[in-house]
Amino acid sequence: MTSFSAISDRLGDLAIEVPSWAYGNSGTRFKVFGSPGTPRTVQEKIADAAAVHRFTGLAPSVALHIPWDLVDDYAALATYAKEHGVALGTINSNTFQDDDYKLGALTHTDPRIRQKAIDHHLECLEVMNQTGSRDLKIWLAEGTNYPGQGDMRARQDRLAEGLRTIYDQLSDDQRLVLEYKFFEPAFYHTDVPDWGTSYVHVAALGDRAKVCLDTGHHAPGTNIEFIVAQLLRLGKLGSFDFNSRFYADDDLIVGAADPYQLFRIMVEVIRGGGFGNAADGSPNEVALMLDQCHNIEAKIPGQIRSVLNVQEMTARALLLDTAALDAARSEGDVLLANEIFMDAFYTDVRRDLAGWREERGLPDDPMRAYLDSGYQQQIEADRVGGSQAGWN
Amino acid sequence: MTSFSAISDRLGDLAIEVPSWAYGNSGTRFKVFGSPGTPRTVQEKIADAAAVHRFTGLAPSVALHIPWDLVDDYAALATYAKEHGVALGTINSNTFQDDDYKLGALTHTDPRIRQKAIDHHLECLEVMNQTGSRDLKIWLAEGTNYPGQGDMRARQDRLAEGLRTIYDQLSDDQRLVLEYKFFEPAFYHTDVPDWGTSYVHVAALGDRAKVCLDTGHHAPGTNIEFIVAQLLRLGKLGSFDFNSRFYADDDLIVGAADPYQLFRIMVEVIRGGGFGNAADGSPNEVALMLDQCHNIEAKIPGQIRSVLNVQEMTARALLLDTAALDAARSEGDVLLANEIFMDAFYTDVRRDLAGWREERGLPDDPMRAYLDSGYQQQIEADRVGGSQAGWN
Amino acid sequence: MTSFSAISDRLGDLAIEVPSWAYGNSGTRFKVFGSPGTPRTVQEKIADAAAVHRFTGLAPSVALHIPWDLVDDYAALATYAKEHGVALGTINSNTFQDDDYKLGALTHTDPRIRQKAIDHHLECLEVMNQTGSRDLKIWLAEGTNYPGQGDMRARQDRLAEGLRTIYDQLSDDQRLVLEYKFFEPAFYHTDVPDWGTSYVHVAALGDRAKVCLDTGHHAPGTNIEFIVAQLLRLGKLGSFDFNSRFYADDDLIVGAADPYQLFRIMVEVIRGGGFGNAADGSPNEVALMLDQCHNIEAKIPGQIRSVLNVQEMTARALLLDTAALDAARSEGDVLLANEIFMDAFYTDVRRDLAGWREERGLPDDPMRAYLDSGYQQQIEADRVGGSQAGWN
Amino acid sequence: MTSFSAISDRLGDLAIEVPSWAYGNSGTRFKVFGSPGTPRTVQEKIADAAAVHRFTGLAPSVALHIPWDLVDDYAALATYAKEHGVALGTINSNTFQDDDYKLGALTHTDPRIRQKAIDHHLECLEVMNQTGSRDLKIWLAEGTNYPGQGDMRARQDRLAEGLRTIYDQLSDDQRLVLEYKFFEPAFYHTDVPDWGTSYVHVAALGDRAKVCLDTGHHAPGTNIEFIVAQLLRLGKLGSFDFNSRFYADDDLIVGAADPYQLFRIMVEVIRGGGFGNAADGSPNEVALMLDQCHNIEAKIPGQIRSVLNVQEMTARALLLDTAALDAARSEGDVLLANEIFMDAFYTDVRRDLAGWREERGLPDDPMRAYLDSGYQQQIEADRVGGSQAGWN
Repeated sequence: MTSFSAISDRLGDLAIEVPSWAYGNSGTRFKVFGSPGTPRTVQEKIADAAAVHRFTGLAPSVALHIPWDLVDDYAALATYAKEHGVALGTINSNTFQDDDYKLGALTHTDPRIRQKAIDHHLECLEVMNQTGSRDLKIWLAEGTNYPGQGDMRARQDRLAEGLRTIYDQLSDDQRLVLEYKFFEPAFYHTDVPDWGTSYVHVAALGDRAKVCLDTGHHAPGTNIEFIVAQLLRLGKLGSFDFNSRFYADDDLIVGAADPYQLFRIMVEVIRGGGFGNAADGSPNEVALMLDQCHNIEAKIPGQIRSVLNVQEMTARALLLDTAALDAARSEGDVLLANEIFMDAFYTDVRRDLAGWREERGLPDDPMRAYLDSGYQQQIEADRVGGSQAGWN
Repeated sequence: MTSFSAISDRLGDLAIEVPSWAYGNSGTRFKVFGSPGTPRTVQEKIADAAAVHRFTGLAPSVALHIPWDLVDDYAALATYAKEHGVALGTINSNTFQDDDYKLGALTHTDPRIRQKAIDHHLECLEVMNQTGSRDLKIWLAEGTNYPGQGDMRARQDRLAEGLRTIYDQLSDDQRLVLEYKFFEPAFYHTDVPDWGTSYVHVAALGDRAKVCLDTGHHAPGTNIEFIVAQLLRLGKLGSFDFNSRFYADDDLIVGAADPYQLFRIMVEVIRGGGFGNAADGSPNEVALMLDQCHNIEAKIPGQIRSVLNVQEMTARALLLDTAALDAARSEGDVLLANEIFMDAFYTDVRRDLAGWREERGLPDDPMRAYLDSGYQQQIEADRVGGSQAGWN
Repeated sequence: MTSFSAISDRLGDLAIEVPSWAYGNSGTRFKVFGSPGTPRTVQEKIADAAAVHRFTGLAPSVALHIPWDLVDDYAALATYAKEHGVALGTINSNTFQDDDYKLGALTHTDPRIRQKAIDHHLECLEVMNQTGSRDLKIWLAEGTNYPGQGDMRARQDRLAEGLRTIYDQLSDDQRLVLEYKFFEPAFYHTDVPDWGTSYVHVAALGDRAKVCLDTGHHAPGTNIEFIVAQLLRLGKLGSFDFNSRFYADDDLIVGAADPYQLFRIMVEVIRGGGFGNAADGSPNEVALMLDQCHNIEAKIPGQIRSVLNVQEMTARALLLDTAALDAARSEGDVLLANEIFMDAFYTDVRRDLAGWREERGLPDDPMRAYLDSGYQQQIEADRVGGSQAGWN
Repeated sequence: MTSFSAISDRLGDLAIEVPSWAYGNSGTRFKVFGSPGTPRTVQEKIADAAAVHRFTGLAPSVALHIPWDLVDDYAALATYAKEHGVALGTINSNTFQDDDYKLGALTHTDPRIRQKAIDHHLECLEVMNQTGSRDLKIWLAEGTNYPGQGDMRARQDRLAEGLRTIYDQLSDDQRLVLEYKFFEPAFYHTDVPDWGTSYVHVAALGDRAKVCLDTGHHAPGTNIEFIVAQLLRLGKLGSFDFNSRFYADDDLIVGAADPYQLFRIMVEVIRGGGFGNAADGSPNEVALMLDQCHNIEAKIPGQIRSVLNVQEMTARALLLDTAALDAARSEGDVLLANEIFMDAFYTDVRRDLAGWREERGLPDDPMRAYLDSGYQQQIEADRVGGSQAGWN
């Protein structure tokens, strides 16, 4: 097997974008539990995200959600972020919380509402121009709840038209990333339910349109790493929304439900050239983002655990002895190939990673260092009054 | 096949309980859409439920949810309901919206919180004593999100202890009905995930403890009618929460996703003696309740459609030629048995049901009658100001 | 709602292709049960298929499977079929029963085996040239059982190359139809697991390459009618393999598990222009085929039930009042749109269909007519000795 | 965390029963691939099983399947096994491969066939008396494929009656273990689909009736470790059939699909007192068996990999620091509890296990030792002619 020292440098290519909304409150339809120290403003969210990066060295950028993170001056916000040691990243649009969007946004039968949804995306592009963000990530909550409610075919056509209008306003260094989701909040059909649909749309749009793969947005049993391999093959994997799930879109900490699956995904990302392929400091071609809800656990530690999980599985994936694996595959030795594969997964990299961090001036145990730092106590003391941020 | 006239009387045994919360706002974790005319008080919810019964003759009782429907005087509320033509039914407890219950209620590691959850149920029993309700329905939202988070085994023991304490306070004509749910809001394990677990607990409690089967609370592919048959065989089916789903606990209108499944369920209810077996006016042994969310559709019409769907499938199930079916089964004629079964399902009973309604002084088309009645316009005009009811 | 008489003519466009292998024995991995009268030869299979057509008027062509239906003289076989009143249809290839294909065929690491698989398909094209068949249907059983066993990405590339070689040998009036399947017989990954993958490949090949949608080949919860709508929108739906399932690829009688789903599928086929759009007697653009296993039920009656189920749901789908539906959708009336939709589904068309058959000289009750015809008794008496046909 | 040396002794309690049929050929309904060296007789199967034990020290007993392993003299067979270093274990019945059982066995409508199925089980008991086996394992393939085909309720009653008759013939030191299965080979309903149904039946039978949990026999998303915890709590977990799956009952090598799940299962087995609790050399209360199909991989190495996977995950589970875990749970520290849990899982025990083996005179790397031993070459040379064993 490859030695840890041989992969040490490549590990430095790992950069995970954290979402601003992970630091606010979230929950299920039954209850959103609040917690002391929760940010009240986008600045406080960024400060928390910066803390995650400070202790792990893994999370150099923060994704924003419009309108949850609306501010008057995005240039100032970018400066604020930079001063805290992080950058502003992907801009996420929202067409699911306005009453007008009850029955659809880009797919609505009413042209006025479609235009409103398009305009919202153009405003997001305007934000991007100010923040210098590369990616506009579009997750569409639209769909129908009852058979017959909508014309699925016509909705596809309206969707294509709306995306085209938005795409045409991208600047040359901007990208449109289209997420798909199996179900929720729509329960009979969603307008972009699977990678195939997202692919069809972004392929029609052009080179700067890509697919976003959220690891929680698939049917039970779906082989996600196959989709990773396929989209990389097609040059259309734009980004990940990492999280984990047992049932539906549970939005649990990435790697918590099935770490072996996360390992397999990272193996295919590396195999397909999706890892560390950015030229000269620009963002990676495939953006690795988190999209999770810390409904019951502490939020900043939850994010620290998440980026560490991704790092651990990335390290194991890099350790894979691909030469030996290819030989076993060529010989049709099923068990040996599987053994080589699992050998990498079973290797405990945690001590090596602690050393790797120390070499880079990072705490060897980021979680303990955070808990001992007093940051949490400070924000709990400071952030009194105001409204805790959440999904609205 | 059996003729409609032969089943006409038995159809009169159909009584569906509607939940007070169906008339308030509901939604997903992403958004709760409001709508004009939504009740602000439990009295307004009961008035709406009474409207459903007035137009359909199918919904003579209303389930309450504590604390959503807390009032000072339940006897007065029962009188109010009676004056509107309906009765108060099942009392539903709630141990999922208090901050104390973040990590559990009856299963919590902290005895203080367990006692609080028990006390809440005893208060529900007190309400039942005043309303004359028979059933205390317990749905427990508890579980864990991460492997290792809780001791699943110890939680079962604490659950058993808590249920025992509650059960021992039931009066002789009261029942405890324990619901199970595959997942949500907990995403790694739930403490009562399946009918087996619910059965084990209610079997330990005694004769007046039963299982509640919510049709949306199962793993993909689960044969629900088998569970119906099994629980009736065991004498432990207490009630249904009817709704329909394509993916998870979608809480759509019952019969909207798979009417054939609803038909099969009603066939087993009838087969197992669970239909119309109440002596002298008392509630049915197996209570048929709705538990749905009308996130995007009109609420009162949504409830009307729901009870009509149950009626239509009940009628078809009653039409099943069981003698011919048994003969085909005995002969091992797979195709003939299936044909006889589907023959009942395929029979369009809507015109016969319209006639059945007219005979009983009900509108032949309840939906049109409701829409033409002006009720909706009236409540939209009247219910201005105040807070629309919802899930809290 | 549309009247039956208004759709009577369009119903005449319905033509369902039956597979030769449905008349032979099939089973599960645990047991294949035989039955008296089972064909021993392809001629006997064709005779049985012709019986289905004779009694229903719905099944004018028979799909063949190579090598199960290998004969020396396909022209003679075509003549035989014609004399029995049916035509030879789609040719199905088989790269899953030769020992060489244990670890793959078109995707195998060994170029010799890939060439063998390609050659098999070229032989199938040769058969098609003789039978006059339009479609080469390719279902690939390949995939892997263990993570790491194969290089999923490289397998895609080899697959693309193999398909290209085959496609280039098609004549101008032939088509390649690529089926996808979620799992089985491979259990970790399949090389064409979803419509997206099939679409990507056929889009790369050219206009005469299409997707085959087998209704049993999806993940739990998949909205199949959405895929139908999408593929028709993209001009890439080539054919259906109809069957039904509760769990996996159960291969039950189409419409038996969820008739409402079959109705919804037919609605989208009609909506998308996929029904009855053949010019001048040529086969329909979208071929409707059965692909089922009658493991425990009688085979010919099982096929009769199947084509009748498709006919009944097609009739209901044609009855849909699309004008009223569009109006309700435009007004955002969720419940009305759903009601109009279900109204068509709930309409019992069986009596009208009986009349429709009589007008066309067909038995009003094809199942009873078949059972009374003596055909079954005759083949049971005649087909003694020899080997009953099955999946090998 | 607990040190490896502290668990070293307890690891010695691990004993895994291997099934005789794992050494014969198996496959899917599409194809059974043969391989050189496959046993032709039950003796050869036992010899192969003994090889697995010789190299691993983990597999001291072999389960038999009647009638696949029918012999005239079971006492002689037991002696043969003993001479090879293994014992005969569980006896598995088979009521799914006789034509009479097409529509059911213990649940059949025909009393003659029910009696035949009962008699088969009594013959199995007779075998057990001769082999000294403790457990009669019953997996029933019965169920129906089409709604209406059978009377599910009546089938339960017939099942209960049949099981009672069999159970009453057990000797005092014999047990009846009833397996459940979600689906396959029946596709609409199975008569013992879930743990609840199996539990209900064995609870009715008596103390010596237990549930068998096959890890591949659940609905998608089912939390298996919860069922383990529940059945142990109820004193009703009799045995495991270990294997792994991605989709259905894939019967892959245990631990290959989701090793973390296997770890979680072993944690609950240990937590619930199901591990190593046998007094004085008698078999463990909870029998750990394999039930897998090596469709494409080498069979003996496949079994070696399987028992090693169980050993590795058992070691990790034993390493769990339960005291620290309980403390974290009591404090409601979700992330810490999860971290302690995953810490045990992430610990690479392979080097320690190699040392553990060497201490006990076993090869440190059983797989390499087997491959280098010449055993495989020997059986391939010897086992020429005859019929390779398979599932019939």
